[in-house]
Amino acid sequence: MPVNAPTLKDPLPVAGFILGTASCGVKKAELAGTRDDILLIYATVPAQAAGVLTQNRVRAACVNLAQASLASHGHDLRAIVANSGNANASTGDEGVKHAKEFILAAAHALNLQPEQVLSASTGVIGTRFPIERVTQGVKKAAKHLGDEHWEEAAHAIKTTDIFAKWASRTVGPYTITGITKGSGMIHPNMATMLAFITTDAPLDHSQLKTILSRVVDRSFNSISVDGDTSTNDSLYLMASGLGLGHAPMTDTEQFEAALLELCIELAQLIVRDGEGVSKFVTIEVTGAKSEADARIVGRTIATSSLVKTAFAGSDANWGRILAAIGNSGIAVHEDDISLAADHVQILKNGQPHPEYTDAQGMDIFANDEFKLTIDLGMGDASATVWTGDLTHDYITINAEYRT
Amino acid sequence: MPVNAPTLKDPLPVAGFILGTASCGVKKAELAGTRDDILLIYATVPAQAAGVLTQNRVRAACVNLAQASLASHGHDLRAIVANSGNANASTGDEGVKHAKEFILAAAHALNLQPEQVLSASTGVIGTRFPIERVTQGVKKAAKHLGDEHWEEAAHAIKTTDIFAKWASRTVGPYTITGITKGSGMIHPNMATMLAFITTDAPLDHSQLKTILSRVVDRSFNSISVDGDTSTNDSLYLMASGLGLGHAPMTDTEQFEAALLELCIELAQLIVRDGEGVSKFVTIEVTGAKSEADARIVGRTIATSSLVKTAFAGSDANWGRILAAIGNSGIAVHEDDISLAADHVQILKNGQPHPEYTDAQGMDIFANDEFKLTIDLGMGDASATVWTGDLTHDYITINAEYRT
Repeated sequence: MPVNAPTLKDPLPVAGFILGTASCGVKKAELAGTRDDILLIYATVPAQAAGVLTQNRVRAACVNLAQASLASHGHDLRAIVANSGNANASTGDEGVKHAKEFILAAAHALNLQPEQVLSASTGVIGTRFPIERVTQGVKKAAKHLGDEHWEEAAHAIKTTDIFAKWASRTVGPYTITGITKGSGMIHPNMATMLAFITTDAPLDHSQLKTILSRVVDRSFNSISVDGDTSTNDSLYLMASGLGLGHAPMTDTEQFEAALLELCIELAQLIVRDGEGVSKFVTIEVTGAKSEADARIVGRTIATSSLVKTAFAGSDANWGRILAAIGNSGIAVHEDDISLAADHVQILKNGQPHPEYTDAQGMDIFANDEFKLTIDLGMGDASATVWTGDLTHDYITINAEYRT
Repeated sequence: MPVNAPTLKDPLPVAGFILGTASCGVKKAELAGTRDDILLIYATVPAQAAGVLTQNRVRAACVNLAQASLASHGHDLRAIVANSGNANASTGDEGVKHAKEFILAAAHALNLQPEQVLSASTGVIGTRFPIERVTQGVKKAAKHLGDEHWEEAAHAIKTTDIFAKWASRTVGPYTITGITKGSGMIHPNMATMLAFITTDAPLDHSQLKTILSRVVDRSFNSISVDGDTSTNDSLYLMASGLGLGHAPMTDTEQFEAALLELCIELAQLIVRDGEGVSKFVTIEVTGAKSEADARIVGRTIATSSLVKTAFAGSDANWGRILAAIGNSGIAVHEDDISLAADHVQILKNGQPHPEYTDAQGMDIFANDEFKLTIDLGMGDASATVWTGDLTHDYITINAEYRT
């Protein structure tokens, strides 16, 4: 079960975007009608867009197609079409053909050029994409577009996610609304992460790209490991410019802060709903030479199976945390490292704290949320990473994923 | 339970080495007398030595001390002293003092200089080393030295290992005998690996060092991930030169081949006894540009939690294998990749094989041993990696490790 899943506030409509969903049984034909698995997001005006795509060398065709469209039509994107139930990855030449047909179906339904449509698929890898059913689903979704359908949209892209994930922010006269799906162990080890974010703020694609790169590092990339990504991970950000005011935005700082807040909220929801996760752990690394270094150390802790099983067992086995720090590849010095769990100091400059007792640590690790603070004692930079534990339920979910 | 743990042949004594064990309750005082946890290996003549030590930046004091002794006394080593039950890592300045006292106890008992003694500790990290009990244990072990004690030695260094691991080889007039302990998930993620190997072959420390580096890459480092190591991982190789013949060895190829065989056997035993492991999977990567590249790809597959849980579920979810290949950091091209499980071709040059059926894959993945062959189609180099699955039992063992 998710860890303290919050009750989400209603998502806010975003001027210039209407959405539709449909149920076509992507995973299995007999599932048609049981749950939505197709999503269409339509921009009523040409939208500016930016994206962050998987670093995996084995990429689904939809990711390659999106990369090309973002490059050629970043100033004139009009739609996102997505499905859950099948990733259409490692499906060979036929998969490439199907990915193009998926986009074409959306383009036809909305009277667009295919280059104006981004697509995304999530689900099982290496299984033939049921293009006939999917095409029907796209047609159906296009007939029920509306600006209020964000919750349905968030449901339509779920795979093993237990709850649907969305968030909204307003910044001055502008609105930002996004949805995401994650699940997977959320180090994550190749569990597909999708996020679609729209805004009515007037930003062009090069501004969006710059802002998004910084924001993703501090949000979605702070729950996952660089290069340890799925074949299909994609985040698309589209801006209609139709927000109140219409004036070009000169000071983008406020927008970036709001987008960062929203992305951290979405990323944390992914961790809370990670497969089998029973604890939500915040790892703050301070005293690093650079923010990037701090993030690498945080991620190495967050992805250590031995650390994550200790979390699962409520075992304050902090030696494993030290071992993970030493494994990060960053040139740390053990004698400079300090470690605290919540407000209890465990290690100070490499020495076990004289007043620390195992019982204190066990009390903290028994909670379903706690925070580790690591001071590397090397500099002034810091980063925060969020992770869950590695539980029996994770094994069950992933050993039986296709059944 | 271990996967097809073989019945091991009796270990062969090695001229120039005598061993003793003792039970002193390293982990808990009340365990004294229940199982051996101290090991002493004594070279009756000055021995040549080489070692491979953990790459972790947070290293136990015993590793740093061994590094110094190997550098200064690689031509004149006389003993290895080891314990299970406590890693004496992340124990601050007191831990360094205890590590020196541990070595001193062995040096006193055997009338050696401390620089002639290598030490190794394995067990829980961050817990005070019970130096008083350990010192008594060393004295006791030194009183019962004999050349037949290899099995007892292998038992004394176990932690969560279910069975003791040893192997012997003869090469011409010379003998090689080694013991090891592993366990941990054996990607492995910081589960301490120890190996002590002795031979009566006449090789000097620089020869040993060169040979060992190549051999470890193809054996112990092919079950584990570089840089993803414990605070205490150590492999020590000692040569007495007392084998029949006593002539200097000019052709070291045969010796290296025998040592490689022995190290592969020991490494595979570690995988078979990995925590919670229920399957033994061989991953052969061919068609790489270099052996190092091939090994990186193999290890990335071998350490993917999603791949390993698919193994556990007997699920031929080969898309996860492709995703792991794409995650390795090696610049692979999906269209050049071929994949087979045992003798069944799944993917050929990036295209799903037309005759492959999921049922065929499921039949193979249901076995407790099978082999994956990946051809990257980029070159002529290859490497083989061995791994296990990620099971519920792994979680149980590691969530409750300290209880």
